Amino acid sequence: MKDQTLHIIKVGGNIIDDEKKLQAFLRSFASFKGEKILVHGGGKLATKLAADLHIPQQMVEGRRITDADTLRIVTMVYAGFINKNIVSLLQSNNCPAIGICGADADIIRAHKRIHPTLDYGFVGDVDRVDAERLSVFLEAGLTVVMAPITHDGKGQLLNTNADTIAQEIAKAMSVQYNSTLVYCFEKAGVLLDAEDESTLIPLINPEAFKKLKAEQKIFAGMIPKLENAFKALHSGVSKVVIGNAEAWDELITGRSGTTISL
Amino acid sequence: MKDQTLHIIKVGGNIIDDEKKLQAFLRSFASFKGEKILVHGGGKLATKLAADLHIPQQMVEGRRITDADTLRIVTMVYAGFINKNIVSLLQSNNCPAIGICGADADIIRAHKRIHPTLDYGFVGDVDRVDAERLSVFLEAGLTVVMAPITHDGKGQLLNTNADTIAQEIAKAMSVQYNSTLVYCFEKAGVLLDAEDESTLIPLINPEAFKKLKAEQKIFAGMIPKLENAFKALHSGVSKVVIGNAEAWDELITGRSGTTISL
Repeated sequence: MKDQTLHIIKVGGNIIDDEKKLQAFLRSFASFKGEKILVHGGGKLATKLAADLHIPQQMVEGRRITDADTLRIVTMVYAGFINKNIVSLLQSNNCPAIGICGADADIIRAHKRIHPTLDYGFVGDVDRVDAERLSVFLEAGLTVVMAPITHDGKGQLLNTNADTIAQEIAKAMSVQYNSTLVYCFEKAGVLLDAEDESTLIPLINPEAFKKLKAEQKIFAGMIPKLENAFKALHSGVSKVVIGNAEAWDELITGRSGTTISL
Repeated sequence: MKDQTLHIIKVGGNIIDDEKKLQAFLRSFASFKGEKILVHGGGKLATKLAADLHIPQQMVEGRRITDADTLRIVTMVYAGFINKNIVSLLQSNNCPAIGICGADADIIRAHKRIHPTLDYGFVGDVDRVDAERLSVFLEAGLTVVMAPITHDGKGQLLNTNADTIAQEIAKAMSVQYNSTLVYCFEKAGVLLDAEDESTLIPLINPEAFKKLKAEQKIFAGMIPKLENAFKALHSGVSKVVIGNAEAWDELITGRSGTTISL
């Protein structure tokens, strides 16, 4: 029986890019007891470094085409600068943390994306997550901080979407834990009116989602996020929460954000 | 009683900077069974990135003055690019590895260097190594790959000499293991004539060292390395080996290089 709860938290660019917001978030995050895995995105730092180095960046439908130079940049920024800064800040808040990427301990194996018409470059789609290895760190009392870089097992690093990594980890860990997946973004949660935070929907189940979609009441950009949330729930994840990292204490105690459940 | 052997290997810039040499070294390294920790330096990549970003670098007596911009660069290059590439290459050679820096799991605590006349910037001198935490990874069957970045426990990352890190790890681990410290550099070992590899000294003990120094037979640059080796031996390290990473198989089996022992 699963009697232990594990939180897998994805924190996005709006927090990563703002030093003060990041520090405040990590303070609250550190004080939250219980086993947890933090997956971080990259924010604008990689884009800025690429510009400083005159390496042109190609974005297709919001996704970065990752050539060899760009892979070098995201590996440096995500797995180096951002990851180690988060770890040292957590440590200073008495939260023992270990910063790794998917290549470390072979935790996330992926393959180079195959697409009929487009070459995404060194972008990886996840094959599997080694839940057993991840548990070793959690059982040693460590919070895992995961950078969105994976590998193919043949010596090639790959750039992988952080939302996907969080979801794949939550799914894999749900064999052993009651895993709750928390997506932190810039809004209070799922809103009926994207411009009005008072229209937050606190709870969405499959029936409510069907109704909201049929009535076109949900911001279109939220639909794939919610569909992924339901996929995670159907794969064993106990609960998905979407909300604002700046209201972490309320979010994690269920007093803010949107909870998605079956 | 200590019945397990642990090798702590420092590999330097001459290997890191050369993709083919690095791949060949990691192939041999991976096939060497037994518990091991690889400490890597930075090589010329950080200097090149600093130049590309027009960040002036100041070297004093071979040491890099680490201002905030330089710290960002070494964190990206050492803990990001080099560390993760080594890990993914080891993994592809069936060597389960985890890449971390001293901030991870609070393994190496350091303080900002205090110097009467010179401000080294964000350069760290080691206070302590958490051997127990390091053992967790080794006992999980992982080879640890350590980047030369530490932290002060107050949220500040620090740039730390990789030779020193290797030595401090070897000392701390010697409580639990028979620890052998291996320094890989560009020469075959300690030579009587720096230009002639056939003048290799296979074994140096304190008496031999005293004699070699008195007779001024040793290359001056080797003396601090050897003094550090003897310090490590007096602190519990079982053996120190100095030699060429390109002859790894011979080095690790004692058929090449210089062995320093009490």
